[in-house]
Amino acid sequence: MAVILDGKKLRNKLLDKLKFEIEQYGVKPSLAVILVGDDAASQIYVNNKKKTADSLGIKSTVIIYPTTVSEMVLLDKIQELNNDDSVNAILIQLPLPEHIDKQKVINSISPIKDVDCFTLENCGRLATGLKPYVYPCTPKGILLLLDEYGISLDGKHVVIVGRSNLVGKPMALMVLNRNATVTICHSHTKNLKEITKTADVLISAVGEVLIEDDMIKNEGVIVDVGIFRDADGKIRGDVQFDSVSKKSAYISPVPGGVGPMTIASLMINTVDLYKIQNKKSS
Amino acid sequence: MAVILDGKKLRNKLLDKLKFEIEQYGVKPSLAVILVGDDAASQIYVNNKKKTADSLGIKSTVIIYPTTVSEMVLLDKIQELNNDDSVNAILIQLPLPEHIDKQKVINSISPIKDVDCFTLENCGRLATGLKPYVYPCTPKGILLLLDEYGISLDGKHVVIVGRSNLVGKPMALMVLNRNATVTICHSHTKNLKEITKTADVLISAVGEVLIEDDMIKNEGVIVDVGIFRDADGKIRGDVQFDSVSKKSAYISPVPGGVGPMTIASLMINTVDLYKIQNKKSS
Repeated sequence: MAVILDGKKLRNKLLDKLKFEIEQYGVKPSLAVILVGDDAASQIYVNNKKKTADSLGIKSTVIIYPTTVSEMVLLDKIQELNNDDSVNAILIQLPLPEHIDKQKVINSISPIKDVDCFTLENCGRLATGLKPYVYPCTPKGILLLLDEYGISLDGKHVVIVGRSNLVGKPMALMVLNRNATVTICHSHTKNLKEITKTADVLISAVGEVLIEDDMIKNEGVIVDVGIFRDADGKIRGDVQFDSVSKKSAYISPVPGGVGPMTIASLMINTVDLYKIQNKKSS
Repeated sequence: MAVILDGKKLRNKLLDKLKFEIEQYGVKPSLAVILVGDDAASQIYVNNKKKTADSLGIKSTVIIYPTTVSEMVLLDKIQELNNDDSVNAILIQLPLPEHIDKQKVINSISPIKDVDCFTLENCGRLATGLKPYVYPCTPKGILLLLDEYGISLDGKHVVIVGRSNLVGKPMALMVLNRNATVTICHSHTKNLKEITKTADVLISAVGEVLIEDDMIKNEGVIVDVGIFRDADGKIRGDVQFDSVSKKSAYISPVPGGVGPMTIASLMINTVDLYKIQNKKSS
């Protein structure tokens, strides 16, 4: 039976430490979140982020716009936040309405306040092996989780299923920096099973039931990034947990694995940007 | 016996077409090359680039500085070239002396004149699936070569050996955009042979003799990016050509494969930047 990669436990540990650290600061780190429209999932995500930030002593501000907001209004607001020294981190909750040029809006964030590592400059830093100001939250959270359990990536074969800008691509670049051999699979991949079976570490970020026990290596490490509600309304991930956990050495559950680590990373990134802007050593 | 991926032939074809196109332009496209120091290999590369540009009607300028040049002088010159409308493309010949912050100098090039796709903005575009102004020369040349021989990448397993910013990493992102499954191997990879044997397309960019016939798939496509002089002074690539070419379906030779395609891409990129800056359709 696999060891559970307990993201909830590690999140609590990291956030306790962070809370203590923030208590030492006279001026508190601050996070500004921009939310456009009334997407129910986005509202839940933003509320969770705000609640977590508040509980740590991070000053959080949520700026809400109607779906009809113009691109110019968003760009002006971001400019204002860029210029406001009391704001350390800026997050645009996605998705944005279709009439907004998402990339243009994201890229208007000052790279030093880009808490998600979404701007072109920070993506370019990541792609060329330079250090971005902070790393993208989900891949960063996954590496923190693997580190906590002493799982080294050097020389390991890491197979990533999914090639999104949010997870797959930055994750690949980050494990490459850790000296892993990396394979990126996706919807066009043929013989997926033949590849996943060779994975020392398998990271699945697809959002559908996909990974069965005949697709994994014995004693492999399984990281499940998928999260969705199945037909019965139950929250679940990409991996058939019951069977796969019998064969793997480590497995992250859904919920309670990568999800909590993503929000922990967001909080750590906010504080890291605060420290960079205030030249405190970490 | 494998079909030879003839980069010299395709280069000639592409450059003939480009020369004809340039003849139609009243004002000629122009390329500025900055060369620092007296590295013999760099001088040969720069001379070849200038000679090729001149033969096509591209106006080329080589600006030479001594090894002792200050970073400020380079940054000022690049600023001047950025602001000069008669310059369409800027290339910094690498390596630069150690006292120069290479990344800072490269990144001071205006992204719209960044003929090598080295600036953080263009790398960020590449990493996030947005179109950079132009693609990096060597990976672009490889894709042109594969296209010429009708080799599709969709759903294929492309294995890249080498993870440099010049070839390995951008190549991986570019074949991913073509819907290939991609694996990046490097010096820390264990069981390299087990991975390369699964490659529908194997791209080796290492610079030492590495790829033997027992490391490749039957009827695979082999692209050799390595180029160096062996102990006998003979120019050669990463691949044991004689044995590997008996087993593969396609193979690029060294010399005469990827090398000529890299310089062809540089010329195409210069003209593409000229067209973007002058809003001509391609």
